[in-house]
Amino acid sequence: MAKTMKLILFLLLSFYIFSLVVSSHQHHPLDPLTPSEFTLVRTIVNKSHPSTKHNITFQYIGLDEPDKPVLLSWLSNPKSKPPPRRAFVITRLDKQSHEITVDLSTRSIVSDKIYHGHGYPLLTFDEQIVASELPQTYQPFLKSIKKRNLNLSDVVCSTFTVGWFGEVKSKRVVKLLCFYIDGSVNLYVRPLEGITLVVDLDEMKIVEYYDRFIVPVPKAEGTDYRASKQKPPFGPRLNGAALVQPDGPGFKIDGHTVSWANWVFHLGFDVRAGPIISLASIYDLEKQEISSVFLDSYYAAEDGTPVKISNTFCIFENHAGHIMWRHTELGIPGEVIREVRPEVSLVVRMVSTVGNYDYIIDWEFKPSGSIKLGIGLTGVLEVKGVTYTHVDQIKEDVHGTLLADNTIGVYHDHFLTYYLDLDAELVVVNPNKKTKVGNNVGYRLIPGSVAHPLLSNDDYPQIRGAFTNNNVWVTPYNKSEKWAGGVYVDQSRGDDTLAVWSLRNRQIENKDIVLWYTIGFHHVPCQEDFPLMPTLSGGFELRPTNFFDSNPVLKTRPPNHVHWPNCTTQP
Amino acid sequence: MAKTMKLILFLLLSFYIFSLVVSSHQHHPLDPLTPSEFTLVRTIVNKSHPSTKHNITFQYIGLDEPDKPVLLSWLSNPKSKPPPRRAFVITRLDKQSHEITVDLSTRSIVSDKIYHGHGYPLLTFDEQIVASELPQTYQPFLKSIKKRNLNLSDVVCSTFTVGWFGEVKSKRVVKLLCFYIDGSVNLYVRPLEGITLVVDLDEMKIVEYYDRFIVPVPKAEGTDYRASKQKPPFGPRLNGAALVQPDGPGFKIDGHTVSWANWVFHLGFDVRAGPIISLASIYDLEKQEISSVFLDSYYAAEDGTPVKISNTFCIFENHAGHIMWRHTELGIPGEVIREVRPEVSLVVRMVSTVGNYDYIIDWEFKPSGSIKLGIGLTGVLEVKGVTYTHVDQIKEDVHGTLLADNTIGVYHDHFLTYYLDLDAELVVVNPNKKTKVGNNVGYRLIPGSVAHPLLSNDDYPQIRGAFTNNNVWVTPYNKSEKWAGGVYVDQSRGDDTLAVWSLRNRQIENKDIVLWYTIGFHHVPCQEDFPLMPTLSGGFELRPTNFFDSNPVLKTRPPNHVHWPNCTTQP
Repeated sequence: MAKTMKLILFLLLSFYIFSLVVSSHQHHPLDPLTPSEFTLVRTIVNKSHPSTKHNITFQYIGLDEPDKPVLLSWLSNPKSKPPPRRAFVITRLDKQSHEITVDLSTRSIVSDKIYHGHGYPLLTFDEQIVASELPQTYQPFLKSIKKRNLNLSDVVCSTFTVGWFGEVKSKRVVKLLCFYIDGSVNLYVRPLEGITLVVDLDEMKIVEYYDRFIVPVPKAEGTDYRASKQKPPFGPRLNGAALVQPDGPGFKIDGHTVSWANWVFHLGFDVRAGPIISLASIYDLEKQEISSVFLDSYYAAEDGTPVKISNTFCIFENHAGHIMWRHTELGIPGEVIREVRPEVSLVVRMVSTVGNYDYIIDWEFKPSGSIKLGIGLTGVLEVKGVTYTHVDQIKEDVHGTLLADNTIGVYHDHFLTYYLDLDAELVVVNPNKKTKVGNNVGYRLIPGSVAHPLLSNDDYPQIRGAFTNNNVWVTPYNKSEKWAGGVYVDQSRGDDTLAVWSLRNRQIENKDIVLWYTIGFHHVPCQEDFPLMPTLSGGFELRPTNFFDSNPVLKTRPPNHVHWPNCTTQP
Repeated sequence: MAKTMKLILFLLLSFYIFSLVVSSHQHHPLDPLTPSEFTLVRTIVNKSHPSTKHNITFQYIGLDEPDKPVLLSWLSNPKSKPPPRRAFVITRLDKQSHEITVDLSTRSIVSDKIYHGHGYPLLTFDEQIVASELPQTYQPFLKSIKKRNLNLSDVVCSTFTVGWFGEVKSKRVVKLLCFYIDGSVNLYVRPLEGITLVVDLDEMKIVEYYDRFIVPVPKAEGTDYRASKQKPPFGPRLNGAALVQPDGPGFKIDGHTVSWANWVFHLGFDVRAGPIISLASIYDLEKQEISSVFLDSYYAAEDGTPVKISNTFCIFENHAGHIMWRHTELGIPGEVIREVRPEVSLVVRMVSTVGNYDYIIDWEFKPSGSIKLGIGLTGVLEVKGVTYTHVDQIKEDVHGTLLADNTIGVYHDHFLTYYLDLDAELVVVNPNKKTKVGNNVGYRLIPGSVAHPLLSNDDYPQIRGAFTNNNVWVTPYNKSEKWAGGVYVDQSRGDDTLAVWSLRNRQIENKDIVLWYTIGFHHVPCQEDFPLMPTLSGGFELRPTNFFDSNPVLKTRPPNHVHWPNCTTQP
């Protein structure tokens, strides 16, 4: 099944920025829930089910964003009373999924209804840990380990969602695959091939067990990636470097509002979506100071208590050696004119580790008004254990590349779908707004790495992942349509995806629209990806196009005290 | 006509590097011609035409590279006598183009033949200057300037090649267009529309003159890009930054051979091709030290004397905030493992200003073995003067965007063709070389921005630019097939292009092949591009694919003393 991730960009491009700068004393309506708010939500929900509180599990707790009109009217007068703070909660209780909306100001439950549709909510970290430890005391599994002469204490299992392949009835189950660490921390490249377990999460017990065949466990040697475990020859050696900013970094953070150069935006967080960039606005004046930071964030544990994620975001000014603009003029007799401006951008980075894979998610803001959305794929490949040690032995289709002895790197795809809520009051091509000379004001999407799914449309995984059928979708804004793959994506049947909503064929011209963009990668592994992948990058750009009346960075002054051996100050 | 540029990469990937490191005491056979060699060539050629020496013009002087087998045999034993140093020369003499090969060791002319085909050699800088000054004393032109009430001393003209549109007979002519500076140095956005001159370069006189209509000269206000000319409000302000490398930069330059991390390559220069990266080799050991530099280079003036180009190349280590690889492991009970390696690359940059446009040409070498070829387009757009000041006034197709009063930014394309001579002994997919587990050793081309020509194939400019019909071409290596657009590209008729050579349909499998890759841009100008373009970027990547037996940067140690607020050292 295609891995998916959802990032929200609520781009409200405007030239009135002060209205957006919110003092840290009060909540911004889009601020993520605070630890005390998580605790309050937990208390309110538990109270509402006194008898059964002990088996309530919190699958999701997040901010229930105010409706856009409410938010916009508050933005027009931020001194006014902010919209009510609400949380959206999904719990499991007596084998049912409950959707609960909690009002934090009135400390009351606004609605509590049972979800009867297909699919299940997000798995909690806690239940995955418990499930992955069940095999350690499961007799048939112990027998399998013994049969392989392996040491149980070196065996670790981890959870994999089971997807949906046409089953009529379904239970909330998860699959376990196990790995052998013994001598390496790179578990994913050392699968115990042939063994599969299925755990019922509501019962929290193993309900299916298979030991179908035995293949050698790929060897540990050379798979550990820790610096401390490397043996000479080391290298390539890279010299150290330090960045010094005599005037300090140029950005400022007030609550969740980040200001830098000519940009201001709100940076939120959701445990499922990751970074949520909102109210991004760009203007024409001057700004500076305060320090480079990592930001923490919170999510709710299974029991509803807040859990801190340290250094969730890293925000930094990037001096990547690019050139913002330059020109050398030799056409004027007797003069040589050369002007160069180094590019500096602000990067908001989050790294999201999904089991074996690490996704580096960058939002890069440029003074030119351009926004680059970058994705880096690194971490460890998913591999399959085989008997082969040389390509010449392979007679069947192994759907992968032989990376090392007994190790196949399986072909796979990655799809990352961005939710870009570009407020039509103000952006994309807007027939109601023109530049001074009469061009339509707009932003342009410059595509990057795109890939089309290889599965046929009636393949079950593709029915669920049908939102990847196109790289670009446009839908009219609808608060309930936020997750391209649906709210209940675990074992979903694809009946709540972007592809389905689009069939409604609604008006989008001159409406408040949402732009959905999907980055795709076909990953045919190569030996360089073993035992750990050098980062593979992709992304796309949102670039102002007749949004400004002229080059917005023409008046950018070369920064003071630049000592930068990167040609951006080329004489 | 599509702008083209040719970069040569003679990739000889090998693991024997010391054979490639050449002491600076002797010439490397691929070193560009030295000033004294230019002078010697000039003397030898002038001597060979004693009577007429005074009207010889040197249109091109460059290194005549040794034949590949000769070079390879020398490389196998660099202590042996190097191949003879030869120069290839194109002169104009009595209205004819001469192709002369000069042997520098024997100080003799190896061959001197007259070229009878279509097209003309490169224009010299000198003759373009002289031609562009002719209008200043040309009566009809002076009358036109007077008629427009303009000040002659503020008028500058520059040369534009005339192309070929089916003419049966041709002369070596160039077109002049003129601009009005008065109050701005941004001449290109202030055309004297309606006036065209044609200059015969062999006669060096104006042979055609047209003054067809008058439109207002776009205003100077707001077009100057010099920092010294900007008025407040300034901004966006960017803070300064300094890069400090306690151990010094990590690369080393010996003659024209550059070594960095696990890379060694030869950096040459040709006045037409620009940077020539040769003998790039990557290996598995350790290296360091010596300083960040700009490199100078030389070309021949019209009279054959060497001219220095200061700071032609800039070479720097780039700490762009990317992540070479990383992984966080939470799957092992009781342990949290996190390893991050910051990406550092070596960039060889050349900026080539072609009149109004500036092309930033980057060769980026990564320790992973990946080579990124980047192009940045900046500088000033080519514009057309019109009477319009608002889009609503436009009733005809103006083939462009109204950028400002009286200023149309014309739609145009850019095509940049790279010549990648990937030695088949060693690279791309090579059926004769396998990895330990038996995969084909190779490099993979990861395409970037591509665009297909909009002209129909039988359009004259497209007949000449037919090498842009495909983004990728593969030809068997042939020393004479180096310039995708032909040697004599000025007024060429397209009979010597990559597209024509390919019709010969030669064997390429398991041969020494040349890979041609064309980057394309369709440029629909927007107001942000006025009066000077923020850099527009494109490029592609050559990435090792089963070239190494495993991740070549796994053993990269985190650099010492990194103080880098860019998340690559994220805890």
